[in-house]
Amino acid sequence: MKVVVIGGVAAGPKAASRIRRLCDTAEVTIVEKGEFLSYAGCGLPYYISGVVKEQKELMATPVGTVRDSVFFRNVKDVTVLNQTEATAIDRENKTVAVRKMDGKTQELEYDKLVLATGAESSIPPIPGIDLQNVFNLKDIHDADRIKETLAQHKALNAVIVGGGLIGVEVAEAFQEMGCRITVVEFLPHILPMMDPEMAALVERHFEARGVRIRTGTRVTGMVGEGKVEKVVTDHGEFPADIVIVAVGVRPAAQLAVDAGLKVGPSGAIAVNSQMQTFDPAIFAVGDCAEKMNIITGKACYVPLGSTANKEGRVAANAICGVGDEFPGVLGSAICKIFDFSVARTGLGEQEARDAGYDVVTCHAPAPDKPHFIPTAKLLFLKLVADRKTGKLLGAQATGPGDAGRRIDIAATALTAGMTIDQLAQLDLAYAPPFSPAMDNILAAANILRNKVDGFMEGISPADVHAMRENGSAITLLDVRSPEEVEQMRIEGTVNIPLGAIRRRMEELDKNKPVVAFCKISLRGYEAALILKQAGFSNVKVMDGGILM
Amino acid sequence: MKVVVIGGVAAGPKAASRIRRLCDTAEVTIVEKGEFLSYAGCGLPYYISGVVKEQKELMATPVGTVRDSVFFRNVKDVTVLNQTEATAIDRENKTVAVRKMDGKTQELEYDKLVLATGAESSIPPIPGIDLQNVFNLKDIHDADRIKETLAQHKALNAVIVGGGLIGVEVAEAFQEMGCRITVVEFLPHILPMMDPEMAALVERHFEARGVRIRTGTRVTGMVGEGKVEKVVTDHGEFPADIVIVAVGVRPAAQLAVDAGLKVGPSGAIAVNSQMQTFDPAIFAVGDCAEKMNIITGKACYVPLGSTANKEGRVAANAICGVGDEFPGVLGSAICKIFDFSVARTGLGEQEARDAGYDVVTCHAPAPDKPHFIPTAKLLFLKLVADRKTGKLLGAQATGPGDAGRRIDIAATALTAGMTIDQLAQLDLAYAPPFSPAMDNILAAANILRNKVDGFMEGISPADVHAMRENGSAITLLDVRSPEEVEQMRIEGTVNIPLGAIRRRMEELDKNKPVVAFCKISLRGYEAALILKQAGFSNVKVMDGGILM
Repeated sequence: MKVVVIGGVAAGPKAASRIRRLCDTAEVTIVEKGEFLSYAGCGLPYYISGVVKEQKELMATPVGTVRDSVFFRNVKDVTVLNQTEATAIDRENKTVAVRKMDGKTQELEYDKLVLATGAESSIPPIPGIDLQNVFNLKDIHDADRIKETLAQHKALNAVIVGGGLIGVEVAEAFQEMGCRITVVEFLPHILPMMDPEMAALVERHFEARGVRIRTGTRVTGMVGEGKVEKVVTDHGEFPADIVIVAVGVRPAAQLAVDAGLKVGPSGAIAVNSQMQTFDPAIFAVGDCAEKMNIITGKACYVPLGSTANKEGRVAANAICGVGDEFPGVLGSAICKIFDFSVARTGLGEQEARDAGYDVVTCHAPAPDKPHFIPTAKLLFLKLVADRKTGKLLGAQATGPGDAGRRIDIAATALTAGMTIDQLAQLDLAYAPPFSPAMDNILAAANILRNKVDGFMEGISPADVHAMRENGSAITLLDVRSPEEVEQMRIEGTVNIPLGAIRRRMEELDKNKPVVAFCKISLRGYEAALILKQAGFSNVKVMDGGILM
Repeated sequence: MKVVVIGGVAAGPKAASRIRRLCDTAEVTIVEKGEFLSYAGCGLPYYISGVVKEQKELMATPVGTVRDSVFFRNVKDVTVLNQTEATAIDRENKTVAVRKMDGKTQELEYDKLVLATGAESSIPPIPGIDLQNVFNLKDIHDADRIKETLAQHKALNAVIVGGGLIGVEVAEAFQEMGCRITVVEFLPHILPMMDPEMAALVERHFEARGVRIRTGTRVTGMVGEGKVEKVVTDHGEFPADIVIVAVGVRPAAQLAVDAGLKVGPSGAIAVNSQMQTFDPAIFAVGDCAEKMNIITGKACYVPLGSTANKEGRVAANAICGVGDEFPGVLGSAICKIFDFSVARTGLGEQEARDAGYDVVTCHAPAPDKPHFIPTAKLLFLKLVADRKTGKLLGAQATGPGDAGRRIDIAATALTAGMTIDQLAQLDLAYAPPFSPAMDNILAAANILRNKVDGFMEGISPADVHAMRENGSAITLLDVRSPEEVEQMRIEGTVNIPLGAIRRRMEELDKNKPVVAFCKISLRGYEAALILKQAGFSNVKVMDGGILM
């Protein structure tokens, strides 16, 4: 069996190696356009910041062996043609035409073909984008050029165009290198994977660390004499010694399209659950292949190295006759931004509404360990669920606390189709150095249960703000202690500490809507229940308290 | 509705507060034998070590309010009778007899009764156990007496009798206080919740930090003039200025038994999934109540604060007519030991065999982040699954890496009854600062899949050792690099680096069983496949490599 794999970065080598392991008669060839194989593209921002010291670390196995052609030959018994471009696929004759750097061409026969052509950076048609010191970050060469530029100067003005995952990771890396950073994002908030109020927390953290964030801002041009000097936007100009354009990636599907293979609604190569295209001899894996969202069942495009690995294995299994299926993705993602981690999985609030669910959400900002453990850190956790079925739909978390653990628990629960009742009862491993007795995600699930069961009606801080702006007659009831109120007073509120509510509730107008809150709205919830039991008819709790 | 709750530490106050929140006509009374309410018993080792500075932190809400009788009255509208012992339950007349510290007695009427009497320390009948400076650690008073004793002396000789969760947490706390520690455990290994080879890793870590571990050792007496001076065992004597006896706890079920309520096979109060005893007016929650193991469906006894919280809520819901059920536990647990975390969930290997499963296990020792991230730390992860159904049965992890996250993912997967195929495909949140592209638990699931699919046959290091002791003719094939072998050579092995296997395999005897290994046995697995494809008939991989 002859197998040709086009693409040597992540999914390709994975598929190639496993095919050879499972099938001793397979002759496997990897065709890779670039010089390097199996490198950790996700590590590039950390290579720029110097966290990763040497280029070769990104290409080495955990024991330090560099994965070059010799490695693939000796260890994997896989042939590698690098610096070789696949130029056309002849599906009828089952051949791939390739061209080497020296211009020589060759035809490779295949019984099975695996496309792992990856993604390419979107390059917006902005005047001046071809100026010097305007970069993408798609491979090690880009990273080297960026490092060189940073090394030549000190305290550079850097502008990052695009506030998505790559953009914010680069922003952090650049800040560590002493640059003055501006992130320009044309959407209303950075990190479009996050809900707006969660992204706002991240924006605040960036600003606190001296990174300027300009959202709702469109870049109209880049200006300079040879080298870029400034970035012009519809909201002013920003000096720029270096610009990184990170406005997203798109699947590198042209080779497949030219061969008559189908792309899906996302523009990526359409595949079934075995990563097979509609041509049974051809598979597509990794960033060039379309994904299915596990929750909605709809096509989506979430290019990630973690997914590429799994898809490479599934394709190899299918090719070698081992039963396997790729179930799809949840859009799980995480990134580190200074002291914060930011993570999400499943559907965001608006995505869930758009998908037709009866959405109920909660915010649970709380320490990620018992308050008496000095290493406890604040974690903002949001859950999204379906009121009708009680099913969890999504989770987002950010803050200095451990977001990753809660999001991975949520991802597992989402895959299993768990309800918030099941989530709230999970027997997670508990000890004080690791988590509160009721872990943040269990506590959040219980808030949702209280909402679904009618014990609690939430209202978002944004809606409270809008009501006050509109002059709506509401009582905004702050049930924090006098000491807490002294530290941070909210104008136009009534302050009655929770412990005094039962005897002082006659101070409140029973017929006026009440919105109760505290620091995180746990006491706000208790106050609301006390008032409801006393006959107050319209009592809501402000989601997440003053921390949101 | 009159509700009496006996026990004011964890599950009791939780049930009491929620009953009052859900039901505005409920009169709720908590009866607590001790002085303190709602204190974090799990925090006691950290109070002893000084991580928790003040006693009141263990009793305060996250915003610093101490949960005393006044707090329960004003905030929760719950009456607290502390320093009051419940002496008898009259189920016919629905009354509880209580006795105050001053000897006064009283009868409390109830419509519903919640037993949250907790657990009590097992006190083994050892001669000398009543000597001075021999302590239990069951409450804040014990902790205070221990702190006092530690404060009076320096560099004490401390002996911990019992190497379970409490024992090892106390050992860590004492070491931080400058004591010379010996842990004496009569079972073959410490931490009986862990499989032997996993516990062995923890024992090595303890020894490396100067804590003496003596397993398989029975304490026969404690000797001293007034104060304890030494602990006598069947394997020698140990000097002891202070002794902590932590040989386990048992449910405090006597009050229930005296009232004719049933206890289950574990000795704890038998309850249904609503935490109701066979008397429909009486509920039992927390450490006095029996649990059900979710996987086996059998009764078990795992007293933990996290479970107590959930059970308190379920009982409150049942009493107030809100539908809810407690699904049971997985025996999830975690503890911190110096730089290691140690965690587990589900069934251990032997437990799974005893339950009749066709057990398949794997060890996956690996860094918990990509090797190029400097904060990557080694994590030893073990999974247990059922070969027949492919279902995950249990997971254990230890090492300096992040054990908690993987164990919580496993706990969620176990609750959902996931197979290792499903586990391996989970869309966990990936970025280099947080995890490898294929997270440790996904990689471990894939090792299991390879074993179940027949691509890999494992053998434990212990079995390899036994075969060599027996003089069995095996080739022990070390496929690490010459540099690695130079650092740590294993006697009696053949060394052929993985990259040279294909051309040097004729050096090996095809008819002799081969056991291949490397540092973590990933290369060992590749070598085994190469040899099998070349016609070697009996090739195994040593589970976990030389790191296990």
